[in-house]
Amino acid sequence: MRAVVLRSTGGPEVLTIEEVADPLVGASEVLVDVAATALNRADLLQRMGLYPDPRGVRPEIPGLEFAGTVAACGPRVTLWQPGDRVMGIEAGGGYATRIAVHERQVMRIPDHLSTVDAAAIPEVFLTAWDALVVQGGLTSGRWALVHAGASGVGTAAIQICRAIGARVAVTCSTGKAGLCLELGADVVLERSPHDWQAEAATVVPGGFDVILDVIGGDEVARNLAAVARRGTIVQVGTMGGGSTAVNVGVLMTKRVTWIGTTLRARPIEEKVALTQRFAAEILPLFETGRLRPVIDSQFPLDEVAAAHQRMAANANAGKILLTM
Amino acid sequence: MRAVVLRSTGGPEVLTIEEVADPLVGASEVLVDVAATALNRADLLQRMGLYPDPRGVRPEIPGLEFAGTVAACGPRVTLWQPGDRVMGIEAGGGYATRIAVHERQVMRIPDHLSTVDAAAIPEVFLTAWDALVVQGGLTSGRWALVHAGASGVGTAAIQICRAIGARVAVTCSTGKAGLCLELGADVVLERSPHDWQAEAATVVPGGFDVILDVIGGDEVARNLAAVARRGTIVQVGTMGGGSTAVNVGVLMTKRVTWIGTTLRARPIEEKVALTQRFAAEILPLFETGRLRPVIDSQFPLDEVAAAHQRMAANANAGKILLTM
Repeated sequence: MRAVVLRSTGGPEVLTIEEVADPLVGASEVLVDVAATALNRADLLQRMGLYPDPRGVRPEIPGLEFAGTVAACGPRVTLWQPGDRVMGIEAGGGYATRIAVHERQVMRIPDHLSTVDAAAIPEVFLTAWDALVVQGGLTSGRWALVHAGASGVGTAAIQICRAIGARVAVTCSTGKAGLCLELGADVVLERSPHDWQAEAATVVPGGFDVILDVIGGDEVARNLAAVARRGTIVQVGTMGGGSTAVNVGVLMTKRVTWIGTTLRARPIEEKVALTQRFAAEILPLFETGRLRPVIDSQFPLDEVAAAHQRMAANANAGKILLTM
Repeated sequence: MRAVVLRSTGGPEVLTIEEVADPLVGASEVLVDVAATALNRADLLQRMGLYPDPRGVRPEIPGLEFAGTVAACGPRVTLWQPGDRVMGIEAGGGYATRIAVHERQVMRIPDHLSTVDAAAIPEVFLTAWDALVVQGGLTSGRWALVHAGASGVGTAAIQICRAIGARVAVTCSTGKAGLCLELGADVVLERSPHDWQAEAATVVPGGFDVILDVIGGDEVARNLAAVARRGTIVQVGTMGGGSTAVNVGVLMTKRVTWIGTTLRARPIEEKVALTQRFAAEILPLFETGRLRPVIDSQFPLDEVAAAHQRMAANANAGKILLTM
């Protein structure tokens, strides 16, 4: 198969494509002919050597998600057969024309979606739903705040909030407000350094029940000010910096829960459990068209460096796909 | 009735005792003749004007817990009758010879305990159990870390950990290690500025599943280093300072949950729910003698100032009682 293989770390130039051996297919695994994968911030960090594959595979093939067609099944596979269209998440290996995954770690691609477009779903919708609903406890009627509303995770989060009857405010740069509103954001706040927190306090005086934050850094103090009593802050990224001052007294008196989370490092049993619950609770909303993948752009695998440059420049709104 | 009434804020000298009107007894409330109350750190803060009664009562009567005998019952009370011995928590009003509380917010005092000694139970055992078990998810086999092991909350926490089959390490000053070991601590670590975290990493290399922290300040960074992957830090105090630097990246990559909590500000429905569950799950362990109140000292109400001075000096190990 063809794959992007990281033999060194650094800028986009280290993303070289090689012919490598097909993956070993375990007894309960499906071998998937990948139609497309999609970029995630973690891929950029991994390329720079800051977030290696948690499985310890060397040399590394990046890629946290994939959509494709089942090419072969291990002898214990009962759920799929060759030709089925599936998508899913993995800890790595998505930037390749083939990937082998446990049969319960993949989901059916909704009929009306193309296989390539489906690659824009798994990582961001699983992340947003897990953070907001599973861990954050977001329900109908409650208010969420989503940072970076036009990012992949942001565009998924807005749609999920609307779909479950929650209300959602987002922060984003001015040029991306239109997309956020179109996806259903109730309130769009200009991102930092603009003082979005003062504006949010006017619009949502009771504070936010759940805050989904990919930024960290200076947003942490604002999050603590903006969160409701007994609210939850879910930290899914630290794009704005890792170490920051925190007022622990506010955490206590407001009875805030602050959860750090990542999908990538989870063991298989957690990935499978999340995938299965997502398939039951969220996948049907893609079938009905209530949710849709938001695609910024497509690059062929050979142009992976250009794709990385686009994300590094924050030029994207929605997902950047890599087609095989 | 007689009560400590805060008509101004400041040092122990503002704790003056007055004759005041008995409390109004609601239809579903019991009027309790208080035998004893007990001190909590929050009382010292309240006296200094830093943590006022969340109910907004002026002038304030401090006191977050009580043990006594039912003197009268509101017309809708069905669970109690005059003469029953009860104990419980409230947002204030414990430093008085009488208090009125919802009938479902009090618990029966175990037969073999004196009414006065029972006043050492409610606040610290409810706090420790709620933090470790209800919110922290501590179970048998797992490791807890409890700061200030010889404090009221600490002595309750050690016993609860042992009683449910969990393992527990504590930090405390050298002079109080004996009490912690006697109560069942598996590991006693000398408190900061000693580098307990390095020592803990040797003894419990996998990290702590739940950390109960009353300190905050400089302990926050050590807590994040000492907590296990997917562990929970429950913040029940900030004795060591409110604002501190936090490495958000560690929170995320270890998938830590950091919960700020306080009992006092909770609405009645939460206090009642917690009391009822505690009565079902923990009170039986006092009946069997598995758990016991740890009493440092008793002061008559008239000597409330001396009692406050003892807590302010960190001289106590276990609870300081005020008898009526």
